[in-house]
Amino acid sequence: MSQYSLVVPSRRLFLRNSGTAVLSVALLADREALAHSETVSQANLHDSAPTQFTEVGDARLAYRRFGKEGAPPLVCLQHFRGRMDNWDPIHTNRLAQDRPVVLVDYRGVGRSSGETPDSMQGLGRDIIDFIRALGAKQVDIFGFSIGGMVAQQIALDAPDLVRRLILAGTGPAGGEGMAAFSPQVQEILSRPNMTPLERGLALFFSPTATSQAAGKAWIARILARQVDREPDASPQVAAAQLAALAKWGQVTGERYGSLKDIPHRTLVVNGHNDIMVPTVNSFILQQKLPDARLMLFPDSGHGAHFQFAEEFAEAAARFLAAD
Amino acid sequence: MSQYSLVVPSRRLFLRNSGTAVLSVALLADREALAHSETVSQANLHDSAPTQFTEVGDARLAYRRFGKEGAPPLVCLQHFRGRMDNWDPIHTNRLAQDRPVVLVDYRGVGRSSGETPDSMQGLGRDIIDFIRALGAKQVDIFGFSIGGMVAQQIALDAPDLVRRLILAGTGPAGGEGMAAFSPQVQEILSRPNMTPLERGLALFFSPTATSQAAGKAWIARILARQVDREPDASPQVAAAQLAALAKWGQVTGERYGSLKDIPHRTLVVNGHNDIMVPTVNSFILQQKLPDARLMLFPDSGHGAHFQFAEEFAEAAARFLAAD
Repeated sequence: MSQYSLVVPSRRLFLRNSGTAVLSVALLADREALAHSETVSQANLHDSAPTQFTEVGDARLAYRRFGKEGAPPLVCLQHFRGRMDNWDPIHTNRLAQDRPVVLVDYRGVGRSSGETPDSMQGLGRDIIDFIRALGAKQVDIFGFSIGGMVAQQIALDAPDLVRRLILAGTGPAGGEGMAAFSPQVQEILSRPNMTPLERGLALFFSPTATSQAAGKAWIARILARQVDREPDASPQVAAAQLAALAKWGQVTGERYGSLKDIPHRTLVVNGHNDIMVPTVNSFILQQKLPDARLMLFPDSGHGAHFQFAEEFAEAAARFLAAD
Repeated sequence: MSQYSLVVPSRRLFLRNSGTAVLSVALLADREALAHSETVSQANLHDSAPTQFTEVGDARLAYRRFGKEGAPPLVCLQHFRGRMDNWDPIHTNRLAQDRPVVLVDYRGVGRSSGETPDSMQGLGRDIIDFIRALGAKQVDIFGFSIGGMVAQQIALDAPDLVRRLILAGTGPAGGEGMAAFSPQVQEILSRPNMTPLERGLALFFSPTATSQAAGKAWIARILARQVDREPDASPQVAAAQLAALAKWGQVTGERYGSLKDIPHRTLVVNGHNDIMVPTVNSFILQQKLPDARLMLFPDSGHGAHFQFAEEFAEAAARFLAAD
């Protein structure tokens, strides 16, 4: 038996995308061969892992789980309006070499049922239930943007469930310039005739040629998966997550006071000039969390970890594997 | 022939330390065996590299060079009053696996002749001449504390000589709280009956048990070399370097304006709470330099790279080796 928990998706799922059915069936044969070999560590599990479901309260959450069993699972929490298809296969496939990687959609996102909660507490509550349903004693959490805020909330609300945190492109409650999107972001969001992908390039990457090229490469990677792609987020998701962001951005009580209650070992990552969640918030997280490392990258923004995908993946793998 | 430039020190040097002569001769035999094998990459070149000298203007600079030839040399510039013996063998031995590591003492420090210059320009001018004397077209520079300031000055004054920079526990000209030592540092410096090593623990490491233990391990490492140890810095060194620090700490012209003229790829590293050069200056360096990465470590201060010695060494090696 392989040491990996790869479950090969059914042919039915592949054949849904009729335009790519022939290629997909050919790929499937390769994947089945891989699943029965002992050398699947370099396999593209990200693009083949089936979508699964689990009941959490009155909702059914969609998730994908793949990678080497035997370590605490790494639960990945996605950005504003993002779904499982938006994770970078360079990250997930690398991290899956060492541990189970679990992608999950918040309630109301992708194929998860129900309405998306409008607070980090509400978003976190579902994920806490989900982690318990996974049966893991502890998990690591990789949260990007709003996902990093949910990750902090989970660390506060269920500290024993969490081993380590990776917080990318995010900030603390009441952080600098986090009560509302900046004028720069609002201008980008208001541009007419912009496709979602063009918007992603403008919001997640710097305006330099290198950063934009890296952004396009990232988009190609997240479009590569042919199996069982997820629907876009509904207006309800956007409205609820915006409400959650607005609450999180308020300064309440002692500013940054709750961060001392997150003793978990943490890796904070961001780009040089994150226009979505100003980069200074990553520095503040490192300064106020009791046990945090910080990595900042040059020539990049909110999506620095996509731009420096291999470098970040290697650093994250080392961070999670360290004693 | 080995691909390494290891020159085995003479027995005479070992025998100077008569208390450890027997052990040293035994170690020397091991080293000679290593020097003739093809697998010296794990060797402790740091502790055996001979001290050499080169003429620079009217001074004679002491240096040690060891490691794999064929890559740009990594020139290491030391902290306030520090000399070659203060470099961490975990760093230098790891980096020497991939490239020549060159430790050098500023004019007037250790066995370098002359009087130490009292400005970063003056300190840098000697090192620029030294780099030219090495015969390398370009070098990488690893500067710690005042060494990181000299490294920035060299990048400004002789940009073509420099490939990459590693700046640890340092800050930009006119940085935050850099015009004078903080009251906390002055209090430590004024404590009576403190040994230099106790002072080093208080200034370079956090007051936590983990950080202090890491500091003691670092001290043991820098005391391990038995060969040809260097004399302590003279009062002239301290006075000149303090004068250089005071000038560097002044805000002149556009604050941080010169950093845009250091386009070299840079790795900035510091601890969570550096009391010698406040940590925020590392964040400022990353924000203002055109191509800088930042790594900050938890539970640590000015000497974070000694506390997380293997982790830093690996990150530095990857940074220097990357395309």
